[in-house]
Amino acid sequence: MSVAVDYEDNTASAIAQQMAETGRAARAAAAELAIAGTRPKNDALAAMAGHLRAGEAEILAGNERDLVAARKAGRNAAFIDRLTLNAERVEAMAAGLEAIRDLDDPVGTVTETFERPNGLRIERTRVPIGVIGIIYESRPNVTADAGALCMKSGNAVILRGGSDSFHSSAAILACLQAGLRDAGLSGNAIQMVPTTDRSAVGMMLEGLNGCIDVIVPRGGKSLVGRVEEEARVPVFSHLEGLCHVYIDGAADPAMARDIAVNAKMRRTGICGAAETLLVDSACARTLLPDLTGALIEAGCEVRGDTDTREIDPRIAPATEDDWSTEYLDAIISTRIVDGVGGAISHIAGYGSNHTDCIVTSDNATAERFLREVDSAIVLHNASTQFADGGEFGMGAEIGIATGKLHARGPVGLEQLTTFKYVVRGSGQTRP
Amino acid sequence: MSVAVDYEDNTASAIAQQMAETGRAARAAAAELAIAGTRPKNDALAAMAGHLRAGEAEILAGNERDLVAARKAGRNAAFIDRLTLNAERVEAMAAGLEAIRDLDDPVGTVTETFERPNGLRIERTRVPIGVIGIIYESRPNVTADAGALCMKSGNAVILRGGSDSFHSSAAILACLQAGLRDAGLSGNAIQMVPTTDRSAVGMMLEGLNGCIDVIVPRGGKSLVGRVEEEARVPVFSHLEGLCHVYIDGAADPAMARDIAVNAKMRRTGICGAAETLLVDSACARTLLPDLTGALIEAGCEVRGDTDTREIDPRIAPATEDDWSTEYLDAIISTRIVDGVGGAISHIAGYGSNHTDCIVTSDNATAERFLREVDSAIVLHNASTQFADGGEFGMGAEIGIATGKLHARGPVGLEQLTTFKYVVRGSGQTRP
Repeated sequence: MSVAVDYEDNTASAIAQQMAETGRAARAAAAELAIAGTRPKNDALAAMAGHLRAGEAEILAGNERDLVAARKAGRNAAFIDRLTLNAERVEAMAAGLEAIRDLDDPVGTVTETFERPNGLRIERTRVPIGVIGIIYESRPNVTADAGALCMKSGNAVILRGGSDSFHSSAAILACLQAGLRDAGLSGNAIQMVPTTDRSAVGMMLEGLNGCIDVIVPRGGKSLVGRVEEEARVPVFSHLEGLCHVYIDGAADPAMARDIAVNAKMRRTGICGAAETLLVDSACARTLLPDLTGALIEAGCEVRGDTDTREIDPRIAPATEDDWSTEYLDAIISTRIVDGVGGAISHIAGYGSNHTDCIVTSDNATAERFLREVDSAIVLHNASTQFADGGEFGMGAEIGIATGKLHARGPVGLEQLTTFKYVVRGSGQTRP
Repeated sequence: MSVAVDYEDNTASAIAQQMAETGRAARAAAAELAIAGTRPKNDALAAMAGHLRAGEAEILAGNERDLVAARKAGRNAAFIDRLTLNAERVEAMAAGLEAIRDLDDPVGTVTETFERPNGLRIERTRVPIGVIGIIYESRPNVTADAGALCMKSGNAVILRGGSDSFHSSAAILACLQAGLRDAGLSGNAIQMVPTTDRSAVGMMLEGLNGCIDVIVPRGGKSLVGRVEEEARVPVFSHLEGLCHVYIDGAADPAMARDIAVNAKMRRTGICGAAETLLVDSACARTLLPDLTGALIEAGCEVRGDTDTREIDPRIAPATEDDWSTEYLDAIISTRIVDGVGGAISHIAGYGSNHTDCIVTSDNATAERFLREVDSAIVLHNASTQFADGGEFGMGAEIGIATGKLHARGPVGLEQLTTFKYVVRGSGQTRP
C-alpha cells in the first residue's frame, strides 16, 4: 500500500481521510498512466507476474489468514472454494497477467476519421477513462485480473474486494505495485481500499470528490440496491445474470436438451448460467419430460408452475420468487409460455438484460426473439454459457455489464476506454 | 398531450401520479418504436414537418403567451431572443425535421462481426437506448429537434423545457404527436412533462421508477449541481462549455488573432465559444497587445491577471472566479502561462472537458496538447466554434456531451443508440 495507513484507526473521520487520499493519489497516477505508452505498461505486467510467482508464500499466508476467519464465520463450501488460493491458482493469476500483456493496447487507436470539406481532419481516438473503482466479491484472483486490465487500458484503479479476502488481496496488491514500480510507473495506479469498513463502499459510490470516473460493481441483489440508491458517478453494472433459455415449438429436441443442460449445468456459479427454462406450450407435452429428465440426471433440481407439474410430476413447485431468483446453483425454474411472444414477455418482466437464448429451427421466430429481447447478449441455438469475453475473442474481461450505456456485455480492454475527438487544422475559423 | 392532465391540479401527489403515468406511457411507446423500422419513423417526421407548417398560427399564439409572461418577468434581451418564434423560425424547425428524416437510421446497423472458431457468428448491432429524458432551456426549437432526433433513433422521449417556453413547446408538441399518429405510431413516443412545477425535474432525475434510461441535462451551473446531487439514472451531461484557446510561443501571429477572435466572438452564446485565452509567456509581450486589440475591436471585454495588465493596460482586472465562468457573452478572460505545460495545467484545473484549442506551428507541442488535455474535443490550429455535430458531419445533434462515457462530444443519432450482441449458432454448447 503506497498510502500510509493505520489499519487500526477505523474511526469515520480517519476512513474518510484515507479514502480521500486514495482518490487523490489515483487521480494523479491516472494522469501519468494515460500518457505512459504501451511499453512501460507491458513491462509492469511482466514484472507483476514475476512478483506473484516469487511472492507465492506471502500470498498463501495472507490467504490462510482469510480462510481461517471465513471458516470461523461459517461461510459455505462454494464461498470457501472461491476464496481459496493454492500454488496452481497463483500461477494461473501470473499467467493471466502475461496474457493481458499480450493483448493489443487500445489506447491511441483511431476508430473513425472524418475529412471535412474545410480541410479539418477529425479523428476519434481511444483514451483511458481515468480512475475506475471496482467493488467485487471475495475472489482474490479478481484483484490481479481487474487491476491489470484497468492498468493496461491506461486507467488507475481503486479496488474494493469482499472483506473476507482482504489479506489475500493485500498480498497480491503488493506484487502488482512492485511490478508497477519496477517499470517506472507509480504504485498508485493500482490501489486497494485501505479498510474493510463498509462505509468505504458508500464513499466510492459517491465518487471520492470527483476522483472516480466510473464504478464497476460486481455482485448480487444486495449490491444492486445499494448502487441504485447511492451511486453518484457513472456505473458499469455487473450485477445479476437472470438468463433464460426458451425452447420453441420448432426446436430440435436433441439440441434443446443439450443447450438447456449446458446452459444450466456446465458451471452453475457464473453469471451466464441459465436460471429459467421457458418451454413453448406447443411442444411442452412432448419435450418437457425429456428436458426435465436430462436436467435431473445432470444433478439439477427443477422447479415449475402448476402447468409444468401436471406434465411432469418430478418437477418441484415454484413460487413467484423463483422467476426472479439468480440461483447460481444446480436449480432451475421452468414455465410454459405461449410461443415466442410469451417468452419475450416473460423475459421483459423478469430478466436482468444479461443473456437470453432461443432454441428453434424457425429462423423468423429466432429473428423476432433476437430483435425484441432487450438484453446485452441474445443467442440463437447456442448456450448462454458463451456469455464471456474470452468466448467473444476479447481476451480477458472484468465481467458482463448489464447496464445499457457505454459498456454492455463483456467488458474487456476496449470497454475500459473512452474516446476524444482530435481535430487538426491549418488556421480554420468558422464562418 | 396524450396523458389526461388537469393543469390546475399541481398538488404534489397529482404531479407524481402524472409523471409516473408519463413514464409508463413512454416505456410502452419505446418498446413499440424500437422495432418499428425506418419507414414509419421517416413518415412521421415528414408529417410532423407538415403539421408544424400548418400549425404556425397556434404555435405563434402559444409563443406570444410565453413572451408576454417573460417580458413581465423582466427576462433579458438574449433570453427573449432565444424564446422568440416567428414564421421563419417555425419554417426552420420544419426543415430541420425533414433533414433528420433524410439522415441514415442507425438502428440495426452491425458495427462489428466476430466469426468464432466454434462456428458462432457474433454481431454487435445498434439498438435504441429506450426512454430518454431531456431537460433543457427555454428554447422552443429544441422541443422539435430533440424530440425528432430521439424518435428517429428509435427512442421514446420525455421533454422538460424551461418553464418560460411551456406554451410554445406544448403547441409544437401537438404537431409532433399528430405526425406520429399520422404514421401509425404512438403519440406517447414524444411527450412533454405535463407541469411547469420544478419537482418534475427531480422526478426525472430519479428515473420515474425505472422508466427513464438516460437523462440529457442541458444547461449551466445551477443544473450541474442539481444533476450531480439528484440523478439516479445515467446522464449525458450537456453542461458548461468552459473552452480555452492557448496561443503558443510558436504560433503564427495572424492565425492566433483570427482563431482567438472567431472562437470568442463568432457567436458568444454557444457552448463552444471560448471563455479563456491562455498566452505563452514566451510570446505574451509581442502577441498579447495584438490579440487584446483585435478582441476589443470586435466588441469584446478583455479581463486578465496582473501580468497581462502590465503588458496591456486596456485589459480589465480578472478575479479568481473569472477562470471558471462561462460568460456566454462578449467577455473573455486572459492569463499568461508557462508554455504548453502551463496551459495543460490551467485547463486541467478550470476546464469543463468540453473543447480546447492550441495555436502553434510546432507539431510536437501540438501533439502534446492534443494528447494531454482531457476534453471531448481538442483542436490544433482551428477555432473552438467547430464544436458542433453538423461541423463534424453528423447532421443534427442534441448538443455536446461533457461527460466521459458512452456519448462524448457531439450527440447525434448514433450517440442516442446503444448496442446488443446477437449470437447465431447451430447448437453449440460450451465445453
